[in-house]
Amino acid sequence: MRALVWDDGLRLVESYPDPMPGPGEVLIRPRLSGICNTDVELTRGYLSHRGVLGHEFVGLVVRAPDAAWVGRRVVGDINAACYRCPTCLAGRHTHCANRTTLGISGRDGTLADYFCLPEANLYAVPDSIPDEAAVFTEPLAAACQILEQVSVRPTDRVIVVGDGKLGLLVAAVLNLTGADLTLVGRHPEKLAIARAWGLDVVLGGRDRAESQGPGEDRLRRAEGATDVVVECTGSPEGFAEARRLLRPRGTLVLKSTHHGSASLDLSALVVDEITLVGSRCGPFAPALRLLQKGLVDPRPLIAGCYDLAEAEAAFRHATQRGALKVLVRGSAEKGIGNRE
Amino acid sequence: MRALVWDDGLRLVESYPDPMPGPGEVLIRPRLSGICNTDVELTRGYLSHRGVLGHEFVGLVVRAPDAAWVGRRVVGDINAACYRCPTCLAGRHTHCANRTTLGISGRDGTLADYFCLPEANLYAVPDSIPDEAAVFTEPLAAACQILEQVSVRPTDRVIVVGDGKLGLLVAAVLNLTGADLTLVGRHPEKLAIARAWGLDVVLGGRDRAESQGPGEDRLRRAEGATDVVVECTGSPEGFAEARRLLRPRGTLVLKSTHHGSASLDLSALVVDEITLVGSRCGPFAPALRLLQKGLVDPRPLIAGCYDLAEAEAAFRHATQRGALKVLVRGSAEKGIGNRE
Repeated sequence: MRALVWDDGLRLVESYPDPMPGPGEVLIRPRLSGICNTDVELTRGYLSHRGVLGHEFVGLVVRAPDAAWVGRRVVGDINAACYRCPTCLAGRHTHCANRTTLGISGRDGTLADYFCLPEANLYAVPDSIPDEAAVFTEPLAAACQILEQVSVRPTDRVIVVGDGKLGLLVAAVLNLTGADLTLVGRHPEKLAIARAWGLDVVLGGRDRAESQGPGEDRLRRAEGATDVVVECTGSPEGFAEARRLLRPRGTLVLKSTHHGSASLDLSALVVDEITLVGSRCGPFAPALRLLQKGLVDPRPLIAGCYDLAEAEAAFRHATQRGALKVLVRGSAEKGIGNRE
Repeated sequence: MRALVWDDGLRLVESYPDPMPGPGEVLIRPRLSGICNTDVELTRGYLSHRGVLGHEFVGLVVRAPDAAWVGRRVVGDINAACYRCPTCLAGRHTHCANRTTLGISGRDGTLADYFCLPEANLYAVPDSIPDEAAVFTEPLAAACQILEQVSVRPTDRVIVVGDGKLGLLVAAVLNLTGADLTLVGRHPEKLAIARAWGLDVVLGGRDRAESQGPGEDRLRRAEGATDVVVECTGSPEGFAEARRLLRPRGTLVLKSTHHGSASLDLSALVVDEITLVGSRCGPFAPALRLLQKGLVDPRPLIAGCYDLAEAEAAFRHATQRGALKVLVRGSAEKGIGNRE
């Protein structure tokens, strides 16, 4: 089959070995995959994954231990856990030390004609959710994860720093709490998406020194006075801005994995009694509910859609600075699926 | 009056200006003061306080706006807040941006014949609590603060890293939750105090490589499996040990202000979904209740007691590596108190 393979170089391999579902696993034909910043970071040396990239998908089940899954449109949790270790049994399967992670660690990903995933990871997609929305379930679940970890109150002042793909989804989800939420970004065209969703946005960052007006005043008033700040840039500047906005005893949520190491004034964390919360993968069921109920519509984030044959070009597009969500269409129904 | 003054040098001044209570303030004659690591850090360049040191005390009220306070034995919150700003009105007066802090920032401390504090900061000490226990109210309140911020469950595995004064008090307080608590320290004589309190202790750190036995096994089993870790050493090694012990989605509480800046792998915080909580000053009322009920007896921590006339020697003692709590006795009833 065809597969977009990372092996210290990125190339579309035409004759990658067909995936073989292990015990309890299903074979999936992806209809759409999304390219995530984590995919881009993997090609820059983050982690040591070698193999097929891709973990955001909506697809059709081709083969499954339980025949009821066959032919169903699904999304799926990217962490394949053992469900036997103490961590799994404590309900934290996304932290299972024995886990593989789809397209990220120890398991080939979705940017291929076919891929495998444990049946236990599947979620059926309601018919009313189009593929172009369902493919955002995974990052939307990651946005929902913040509310699994932190109690955001309707009376809170909340700022999301970073108007990238994840920042926009995080802002959309947290906005539903009724909190006084502001998205701070550096890209007028991305902030326009959030504004169209009805969110309050402020153009910050590099252009901020020159910017005046109500947004600027809003940020100035928020300095040291924001209850919850979510850092979605992964940059040292974004972290510094988030820290500056936070009030004493406030909560700073870290959503990006590409920070690397940063120097942090731990004494200041103690004096200001800051809570820092790392937040990663999230629950799929609420993300699907938000999509089904139309409470979040991620489709304005789509920057382009490519056939799998053009996956290298798709990846180049996704790697462009500031690119929004690039999608890759899976194959039509042929190949090993038809050999069934 | 006499006062132990820090002014880029430390000396006992015989004729320091008598303190003058401002509006709403009381004049206090300290009976006992404790020397805290923060005092030592101040003389090493932490913050920019110049003036009288000392913030842990039990004393007698000499003069007060409300005469009912005069003659009463008191302890007191060290943060003198404005009670008017949004931070104060939100119930976070220990973070008031207009605050002064007794012996730490903008306000002379307790290592003197007399000092001032707002009447609003006072707590009457029940007769059954001896001075030698009451003088620990402030650090014990700081230990209680952890439970104001973090929900420690009886089923949690908890490790306190650091067997210094604060680490011992933190372990004593958290042990009352019924959690499976272990204190990890480097000083057999300090761990012996905790063991006498009935706590589980493990000798770690430098001696750990050579140590074998049940304690060592206990630590090995706790690696990556501890629900809540409290870092009380303030050292990079202590932080690294705390981080190593913590489980995914665990909570790491930082209790020391003398870390300075540390390099932190923020990506790992996100991947492991760690919560980092800075924790500082705490509530006095529960600390007094713990003392009154005999649930915590801090007196074994006392390493020595000096007269104010020997305050410089007391400070030298407190500065010795590994010193436990050094106390300073206030003057007998004479001086400006008798001019009333």
